[in-house]
Amino acid sequence: MRQPLAREFHDLLERGRDRQLRLAVTGLSRAGKTAFLTSLVHQLRHAGLEARLDLLPAAREGRLLGAQRVAQQDLGVPRFPYDPAMAALDADPPRWPDPTRGISELRLAIRYRPKRSGLLARSAATLTLDLIDYPGEWLLDLPLLDHDYLSWSASRPAHDDGEYAALFADWRASLADLDPAATADEARLAEIADAYASGLRAAREAGFADLQPGRFLLPGELDGAPVLQFFPLPGLGEEDRDRLKTLPADSVYQTLARRFDYYQRHVVRPFYQEHFRRFDRQIVLVDVLGALNAGPDRFADLSRALGTLMKSFDYGRRSLLSRLFTPRIDRLAIAATKADHVTPEQHSHLVSLLEALLAEPLKDLRFADVPVNAFSLASIRTTSAHSVEHQGRTTPALRGTTLDNESVLVFPGEVPSRLPDADFWARQGFDFRAFRPAPRGQGALPHIRLDATLDWLLGDKLQ
Amino acid sequence: MRQPLAREFHDLLERGRDRQLRLAVTGLSRAGKTAFLTSLVHQLRHAGLEARLDLLPAAREGRLLGAQRVAQQDLGVPRFPYDPAMAALDADPPRWPDPTRGISELRLAIRYRPKRSGLLARSAATLTLDLIDYPGEWLLDLPLLDHDYLSWSASRPAHDDGEYAALFADWRASLADLDPAATADEARLAEIADAYASGLRAAREAGFADLQPGRFLLPGELDGAPVLQFFPLPGLGEEDRDRLKTLPADSVYQTLARRFDYYQRHVVRPFYQEHFRRFDRQIVLVDVLGALNAGPDRFADLSRALGTLMKSFDYGRRSLLSRLFTPRIDRLAIAATKADHVTPEQHSHLVSLLEALLAEPLKDLRFADVPVNAFSLASIRTTSAHSVEHQGRTTPALRGTTLDNESVLVFPGEVPSRLPDADFWARQGFDFRAFRPAPRGQGALPHIRLDATLDWLLGDKLQ
Repeated sequence: MRQPLAREFHDLLERGRDRQLRLAVTGLSRAGKTAFLTSLVHQLRHAGLEARLDLLPAAREGRLLGAQRVAQQDLGVPRFPYDPAMAALDADPPRWPDPTRGISELRLAIRYRPKRSGLLARSAATLTLDLIDYPGEWLLDLPLLDHDYLSWSASRPAHDDGEYAALFADWRASLADLDPAATADEARLAEIADAYASGLRAAREAGFADLQPGRFLLPGELDGAPVLQFFPLPGLGEEDRDRLKTLPADSVYQTLARRFDYYQRHVVRPFYQEHFRRFDRQIVLVDVLGALNAGPDRFADLSRALGTLMKSFDYGRRSLLSRLFTPRIDRLAIAATKADHVTPEQHSHLVSLLEALLAEPLKDLRFADVPVNAFSLASIRTTSAHSVEHQGRTTPALRGTTLDNESVLVFPGEVPSRLPDADFWARQGFDFRAFRPAPRGQGALPHIRLDATLDWLLGDKLQ
Repeated sequence: MRQPLAREFHDLLERGRDRQLRLAVTGLSRAGKTAFLTSLVHQLRHAGLEARLDLLPAAREGRLLGAQRVAQQDLGVPRFPYDPAMAALDADPPRWPDPTRGISELRLAIRYRPKRSGLLARSAATLTLDLIDYPGEWLLDLPLLDHDYLSWSASRPAHDDGEYAALFADWRASLADLDPAATADEARLAEIADAYASGLRAAREAGFADLQPGRFLLPGELDGAPVLQFFPLPGLGEEDRDRLKTLPADSVYQTLARRFDYYQRHVVRPFYQEHFRRFDRQIVLVDVLGALNAGPDRFADLSRALGTLMKSFDYGRRSLLSRLFTPRIDRLAIAATKADHVTPEQHSHLVSLLEALLAEPLKDLRFADVPVNAFSLASIRTTSAHSVEHQGRTTPALRGTTLDNESVLVFPGEVPSRLPDADFWARQGFDFRAFRPAPRGQGALPHIRLDATLDWLLGDKLQ
C-alpha cells in the first residue's frame, strides 16, 4: 500500500496550489456514512443544475460548474460504491444503500470559477477532491496504541454488571479456570476469543459503541488468524507485572501479549500511517437521535465511545498521534445526522445536544486550536414538516414513509438541548421512527444543511 | 507480515538442527486440499494408536510417538480450521469439510525416537512441522510476473471460440467500441472488469483451471479496488507498443497498465516473498479423476493449468523465481487424489496418467535436479473394494455412499494409463461418482497411501 515517491511529489505540488483536498468521512456503524457520501457526490455532480446548495457560496454565486468522478490514486483501496447506492435510492420503492464495510474512496474533479481571478477572469479551475470513507470503530483502537497488553487488559470494562456485561456472560464463563501461567492451548484460546468477539458483536447489535478491539467486528482476511485471537484477562493489574514478565513464552499470558503487540503493529498502526496521516479535512457523523431513542445505557456508551474516537483529532499536546507522525487535518466537522427525523424547530437543540455530548473532546480540540464546527443535517431528507391543529394548539409534525412503506404523520417529541437527565428518560418523551427515502423523480436528492456542512469543509478551496 | 529478525534467527537454528520443516500443500479448487490436511494432522495425532501408517517407517517401527498442535509463528495468517473439519467428518451423516479460502497454516510438534540415538538411546526428539495450505490458483499468477501489461494481454486466450469463450461472451460484448486511447471512464472499466471476473468464475464453475488473474476469483479485502479492475485488451500486440506508449496517463490503456503493474507488485510478488520462499517441501494435489469425468475440454485445460502451476517449482535455469529469491523447496510430491473412487487395480494407471499429464513439467524438474515423486492416494477413504461375479467373470467394484446418502455398488471403469485419446472420450468409459465420507466410529480416518506420501515428504526428518 506504500505510495511511490513520484506520486507523493505530484500530490505535494497539487496541494501547494490548493488544488487537491483529501476529505475523510467517518462515524460509528449506522451513523449514516454511506448516505452522506452518496448525497455529497450527488449534490456536487448536480451543482449548477437541480441541486440546491444555497448555503455554499460558490454554488449560490453560480461559480460551481460541476464535478466528475476520476480515477483514484490508491489502487489497493476499494472504490466507494456510488452507483449501487444511487440504484438503491432510485429503486421502487426506494431503499437505503447497503452500508460500506472497511475503507473505500472516490475521487472527484470539481470545476469552479475562482472569485477573484484577476487577469484570468472567467477561466475555470479544478479542485481534486478525494473522499475517503472508513469505519469510526477503527478510531476506537487508537488508545490501544498507548497500552501494552497488561495495561490494556486492566483498562477494559469489568464486564461483571449491567446490560453490557450480560452480553459477555458466555465469554466470562469460557474464561473459567484459565491460568495465565499455564501453557497456552491454541484451540482453547481461539474458543475464548470467539466468545469475546461474539460479545462485541452482540454489544454492537444492542447499540453499544465502546468496542475494542475494533477489527474483531470486521476481520476480513484476518478471520481465523491468531492476531485476532486475544482478549483481556480480568483481575490482572500492575501489581502482577513482575510476576507475569517471568512467565515462559508459551504461557497463556505471554501468548496473548504477543498477539496484542502484533495487532498494534500490523493492524492499528498501518491505518494511521497509510491513510489517516494523509487526511486534510474530516467530518465525524453521529447518530444522536438513534442513541436518544435507545435509552440511557446506550446514550452513555455513545458518549464514552465518541470521547475515545475524538482523541484521534487531538494533536494539541504531546499526543499519541503526533508521536507517530505530523498530523495534517486542519478543519473538522461534527454532525448529528438524520435531522429530518425531528421537526425543524428542534434542529438547534440537536446541535446543542451534540455539543454537550462532545463537550470534553471539544474543549481539548479548541485548546489545541483545531477549528471545529457542529452541524445538524439530513444527507437525504425523507420527511416533510407540517403543522397540526389540535384543541386550538398548533403542533409541529412530520410526514414520512416508514421502512414498511406506510405513510405516517408523527409527532417525534422534543430533543433535549442538554444531556438528558433521569427525568427525561423517565418521561420517555421521544418517539424516533426510521423512515425510508422518498422517490426522487427527476430532481436532485433533497437534503437538510448538507450545503452548509460542505461550505465549512471545502468552501475556502472554492474561493 | 514481516517477521522480526529474532524469529528468523531462531527458525534458522531450529532448521540447522533439522528440527523444523515447512510443508506446503496446494492444488486447484476441489483438488482435495482440506481433506488432505485434515487427514494428515489426524493421522499424526493418532500415530502409535489407531492410525495405520505402515508405509511410514518411523510409525511402523513404533518410533513415532504422536503430535500436538502448538502455536503458529505467523500471527497474521489464519489458522487451518482442523476442528471444524473434524466436526464435519464426525457429523451424522458425515460431511466433507468446507473448503478453505486463501492461505492458512497449522503447526505440529511431532515427537519421535531417532533411529540411531547413540549415547542418548531412547531419548525422544521433536520435529516442528508447519503445514501451510494455499490455493493453487495463486501459482497460476506467477507467469504474469514475466509480462508487462501489453505482453500479458496478448498472451491471454483469444476467447473467441469454443466452450471457454462462450463463458466470456458478456465480457466480449461489454468491450465493444472500447478505445484504448480514449480517456478512461472509471465506471465503465469497473463494469468490464466485473464481466471479466464473472467469466473467470463461470469458467471455474465449469471446471476450467487456466484462470488469470487468480485473485479475481477470491478478492477478499481488495473487492472493489481498482487493482482488481483490469482485463486483457484483445487485438493489441507488440506492433502497437510504440503507439500505446505515447498515450496520456488517463487513457484506457495506461490506466489498465498501471493496475496490472500494481497487481504484480502488491498482490503476486508479496505471496512469493513472504510465504513461498520459506517453504521446505511441497505437495501438489491434482483431481485427475474429476477432470477425466468432465470431458476433453476440461482435461486439456487442467493439463495447461498444471503446466503453468508447476513453473513455480522449476528453479533449474535462470528461472523467474530464482531472480526473485533463493528457493528452498528441496522435495516435491505430486498426487492424484480421490484414488478410492476407482478400484485398486486402477491405482497404478492413475499414477501413470498423472505423470503423463505432467510430463513436460516433470522433465524440467528432473533436469533441474529437484527430487519429485508421484502418488495416487485417498486422504480419507470413502469406499470399500469388492469383486462381483457376473456371467462367470469376476469384475472389481466399489461400494460407497453417495452425497445423497444412498449406498451404491459401482463399476467405475478403467483409468487410461496414458493421455486419453479421441477413442477414450468417444467411449465415455468412465463413470466417476462422488462419495461422502463414512462414519469413522472410534478408529482413525481410513486412507489410501497417505502414509507413503508422508514418508516421502518428511520420513527423512524422522530418522
